Amino acid sequence: MELWYTEKQTPNHGITTKISKTIHSEKTDFQQLDIIDTNQFGRMLVLDGMVMTTIKDEFVYHEMITHVALNTHPNPKKVLVVGGGDGGAIREIIKHPSVEKAVLAEIDGRVIETSKQYLPEIAGALDDPRVDVQVVDGIQYIHDHKNEFDVIMVDSTEPVGPAVGLFEKGFYQGIYDCLKEDGILVAQTESPWFNQDLIRRVFKDIRSIFPITRLYTVSIPTYPSGLWSFTMGSKKYDPLKVNESELKDLDTKYYSPSIHKSVFQLPKFVEDLVKE
Amino acid sequence: MELWYTEKQTPNHGITTKISKTIHSEKTDFQQLDIIDTNQFGRMLVLDGMVMTTIKDEFVYHEMITHVALNTHPNPKKVLVVGGGDGGAIREIIKHPSVEKAVLAEIDGRVIETSKQYLPEIAGALDDPRVDVQVVDGIQYIHDHKNEFDVIMVDSTEPVGPAVGLFEKGFYQGIYDCLKEDGILVAQTESPWFNQDLIRRVFKDIRSIFPITRLYTVSIPTYPSGLWSFTMGSKKYDPLKVNESELKDLDTKYYSPSIHKSVFQLPKFVEDLVKE
Repeated sequence: MELWYTEKQTPNHGITTKISKTIHSEKTDFQQLDIIDTNQFGRMLVLDGMVMTTIKDEFVYHEMITHVALNTHPNPKKVLVVGGGDGGAIREIIKHPSVEKAVLAEIDGRVIETSKQYLPEIAGALDDPRVDVQVVDGIQYIHDHKNEFDVIMVDSTEPVGPAVGLFEKGFYQGIYDCLKEDGILVAQTESPWFNQDLIRRVFKDIRSIFPITRLYTVSIPTYPSGLWSFTMGSKKYDPLKVNESELKDLDTKYYSPSIHKSVFQLPKFVEDLVKE
Repeated sequence: MELWYTEKQTPNHGITTKISKTIHSEKTDFQQLDIIDTNQFGRMLVLDGMVMTTIKDEFVYHEMITHVALNTHPNPKKVLVVGGGDGGAIREIIKHPSVEKAVLAEIDGRVIETSKQYLPEIAGALDDPRVDVQVVDGIQYIHDHKNEFDVIMVDSTEPVGPAVGLFEKGFYQGIYDCLKEDGILVAQTESPWFNQDLIRRVFKDIRSIFPITRLYTVSIPTYPSGLWSFTMGSKKYDPLKVNESELKDLDTKYYSPSIHKSVFQLPKFVEDLVKE
């Protein structure tokens, strides 16, 4: 018998991928959590029926939510990830020698534990001594910490269920206050093909708070449409004004100093979403 | 009853999309040809079970197989499209005022006729007086014409069935001979995620023939992995040496002078495919 996992990424469209084995399945306090082994993308973490990450393409998301900001900030020492319980963003963050402390604020402890158990390639870095894992509501954590972080990444699930509050203007204002005076925010902001209203709104919200706001895109085959966006809000440093030849060359498979600026060059229909 | 069209883009992975209506279905002399109306991407042309183009995202492929080369060549007058029976590449080519003649060499006349009938937004330009539609084997056409074209685009189906010969080194040598002394070739070369061996081989073949060889990528949600590559071989003009401020700004939704160079900045794992 052939088993296929099908995700309706919109009511009318989705991906379907062959499964070799279901590894784990549970209902946590916050969401449905499944781990499956797929033939095409290897092991896959699924939350509430949406692919979060896979062994074969996770490097794109995790490198690109982290290194663009961390190579824009001249000396990031203290970094916060809101969400991101699989640990992939943390793994990338601690590749930067300047980082002294990386805090993970994940609301669902079961995502962390399950990832450690079944996705050690991604979650292994959560045991690094520089990492502080907090099982906590990210909104509360942001509220309780002021003027503390150099870079904050919002590594959320889709804007339904537990993550709705992570796409609201008040949350971005809280992040602004939680950042130091030259801090940088990066948020995952969905697909430029399928989530245009969300991208427009979030960009506008972040631009109303941060002096420098930029959108960039990357290719993630298991995410809806295959094209994904991140929105950066920065208090001082402009990612387009770095000197590429001075950027740190990291152990990466997608990010490189030579694409640091080019990911901000958007297809015309995407550029039009964020025009003033 | 809900109908969904599912394409296995690899033996283990694919897309599935909701159909509102099947418009047309036939077996031509060369391939199975289907036109379906989908909820997410509008009307869709499917050949041998593979999505060729859809109303909602066709602009990416058609703009990006044409304008990068046509804005690299300083004065393209005579342009050839091998394949491309839907007419989308031709529609973009004749947006360039310098173009005096655009030849379409498509082996399957039924693709042309069916596209004209059911996809007029894409195929309408085939009736333009500058366009010469030839129902002919592209390989034969290339063989019969020497030193004639400024730009040649290989707008083929996947490298199975009728299109196999369009991915072979001898064919690229034929194109070299069919181009004028400063001509440019662009070929669609599949997905950097799923077709890495093909990209490596074609790049090597084209580089062994043309002095300037470059790979670029674009986002096409209905194509496998959502990321698509094109390989350019050029006798004289380097797409990276154009003056962006002098490039023609066209009526486009994806291409713009400001992404002309950045599409050649590749993610590290793609760059590694074509490193010497």
